[in-house]
Amino acid sequence: MRAQVAIIGAGPAGLLLGQLLYKAGIDAVILEQRTPEYVLGRIRAGVLEQGTVDILDLAGVGGRLHSQAMTHDGVEIGASGQRRRIPFKELVGKVVTVYGQTEVTRDLMDARAACGAPSIYEAESVELHDITTARPWVTFVHKGVKQRLDCDFIAGCDGYHGVSRRSIPAEALSVFERTYPFGWLGVLADVPPAWDELIYADSERGFALASMRSETRVRCYVQCSLDDKVENWSDEQFWAEFKRRVGDDVAARMTTGPSIEKSIAPLRSFVAEPMRYGQLFLAGDAAHIVPPTGAKGLNLAASDVFYLYEALTGYYKNDSRAALDQYSDRALRRVWQAVRFSWWMTSLLHRFPNEDPFFGRIRGSELEYLFKSDAAQRTLAENYVGLPL
Amino acid sequence: MRAQVAIIGAGPAGLLLGQLLYKAGIDAVILEQRTPEYVLGRIRAGVLEQGTVDILDLAGVGGRLHSQAMTHDGVEIGASGQRRRIPFKELVGKVVTVYGQTEVTRDLMDARAACGAPSIYEAESVELHDITTARPWVTFVHKGVKQRLDCDFIAGCDGYHGVSRRSIPAEALSVFERTYPFGWLGVLADVPPAWDELIYADSERGFALASMRSETRVRCYVQCSLDDKVENWSDEQFWAEFKRRVGDDVAARMTTGPSIEKSIAPLRSFVAEPMRYGQLFLAGDAAHIVPPTGAKGLNLAASDVFYLYEALTGYYKNDSRAALDQYSDRALRRVWQAVRFSWWMTSLLHRFPNEDPFFGRIRGSELEYLFKSDAAQRTLAENYVGLPL
Repeated sequence: MRAQVAIIGAGPAGLLLGQLLYKAGIDAVILEQRTPEYVLGRIRAGVLEQGTVDILDLAGVGGRLHSQAMTHDGVEIGASGQRRRIPFKELVGKVVTVYGQTEVTRDLMDARAACGAPSIYEAESVELHDITTARPWVTFVHKGVKQRLDCDFIAGCDGYHGVSRRSIPAEALSVFERTYPFGWLGVLADVPPAWDELIYADSERGFALASMRSETRVRCYVQCSLDDKVENWSDEQFWAEFKRRVGDDVAARMTTGPSIEKSIAPLRSFVAEPMRYGQLFLAGDAAHIVPPTGAKGLNLAASDVFYLYEALTGYYKNDSRAALDQYSDRALRRVWQAVRFSWWMTSLLHRFPNEDPFFGRIRGSELEYLFKSDAAQRTLAENYVGLPL
Repeated sequence: MRAQVAIIGAGPAGLLLGQLLYKAGIDAVILEQRTPEYVLGRIRAGVLEQGTVDILDLAGVGGRLHSQAMTHDGVEIGASGQRRRIPFKELVGKVVTVYGQTEVTRDLMDARAACGAPSIYEAESVELHDITTARPWVTFVHKGVKQRLDCDFIAGCDGYHGVSRRSIPAEALSVFERTYPFGWLGVLADVPPAWDELIYADSERGFALASMRSETRVRCYVQCSLDDKVENWSDEQFWAEFKRRVGDDVAARMTTGPSIEKSIAPLRSFVAEPMRYGQLFLAGDAAHIVPPTGAKGLNLAASDVFYLYEALTGYYKNDSRAALDQYSDRALRRVWQAVRFSWWMTSLLHRFPNEDPFFGRIRGSELEYLFKSDAAQRTLAENYVGLPL
């Protein structure tokens, strides 16, 4: 088997790259370890920057999004019993789009199926070979048969746990990491949201986030300890805790319902540099993880993929390696801005166990400053809606 | 001896409060442990917020300042071999005034001498008594004779090492502290500055600050290790190191000269809460210390003093204790904003020994963001020129 580009992973990054390349007439094969149903079952982010929506449009998969998604002109920040709206549109002239990652993935899968481009699901034991030569190749086992895919480039879109980054020698990578001493307990439920926009709430009991996926489905989180277990939380207990944190007015008017998904995720910042090794290019979670607080994970995957698409079309259409050579630096510049913002928002809004009292006061002062300063609100707004590509 | 207010300390905080109270017809005695010459010999800050200038004007001591001081419309930030000007006036419509703390102190001393209000220098073994009663009193030894000063209120303006804060029972104070793993080596020299505005420079060799006190006197700093000694640095070594950090263009055009003062200061953030205990009110360094990076120390002392002056005139003129009761909360709100800003600027611009690589990248990304974002520059500008009183 041969393709110009082997894409490892059929999450949103791999599928989006596949679709952009298909539109540009560059042939790619996507290899995915899991089944389509498994991929679609993963509940992830739900806030898209305008730049991400533009890239989805470029890939030709924006149709359902434009008819079904909500746009939000701002978010609310809760702290010290008060709430402050950060009006994105007013401050920086942009908005965000609320549309679940699952829906993005479904649209991309449907588009790929419609155009007949090859995706191989349940591709097991994927291995990358001769990455540093001009003719890399990939092996995998599909339905019990070992297969070989020859290619010019490999796009590593297989997430943090995938084989791509692990195929780069450790000594060729610099790793930057920060773990946070808490996790998020999240619940998905089919009830109409009692909030018009997302509410990020700092409270003495810890952080809570009120978000939604649609006008009939909410996604709510509470900060929990790292050793907590989903089994410790009945739906009733979750909603009671959420209500205590999100603000009395919201608690009073909200509807609760049975969870259709409930999970705990740890929070982490992680970056591996560079994002290229020979003919292997990492994109999305394969190269970097951000805590979900800034809603940047999917958006970074989209911008990585866009830069990689530009680099690959530069090579195939204009015979230029320039953008390929610049890919890692270009992507990392944007990645680090999102890592910085996500770290800042996480640090600002969570209660840290055994927090140094000095930093507790710094955190409180920063929230107070954010509530009062137009300039500070503008920095939050411009990062949240997405810095320019 | 009796006065309405006993002011402990004849630094700029104590002298400024004395002058404001004198103008309001409230009598105060200032007790100072040192000689006037010693007080004037301390080299400190040199950047005044507009609010501080306004308070000096209110005290009637702005004359020489207005004829001799320089106003600066911005500062420059250096990083990664580039420099970015933060244009205060353009961004937030305000400027700062460059005028040495020594000059402020001299003007205040001259004004106090001119009006004949009492200051007792070389007042030793100062002790505060019955602070929590309506009739506190102060004892001290002057020229070998023990004396007693009865008063209604005590203003503790005697700095970090003074007796005032130490007179409050430890269990009545909450202390918040952060030390930084480096100091500033500072040199004062009578040469014309080769820079129009202050330059805060991050470099691989560490931080440097190019500042000035007048058109013929510079004040320059380099980040140094905490165990460094002034004796390790000849003037030539200092200037050579400073030039390596401040930027090649500045180094090429600058003039150096013999130091007229050279010292190493550690950097620290410190806040004691509350700023009031009974009839004792702390102001300035007695209650809080900031690292010099944000140029906030003297400005915070001035705003504390202004709030205390309003509280005392409220009591004596309008028979209201309301502002006295609000003093600590009001002052601390402003203090914490300055502590936050000074901590942020210090963290942003210094190289930390054994810095966590993740935070090294965060720091670099934050500098890059600051260089690019108008909103981020605006947050720096509005804090540097001073948040509203």
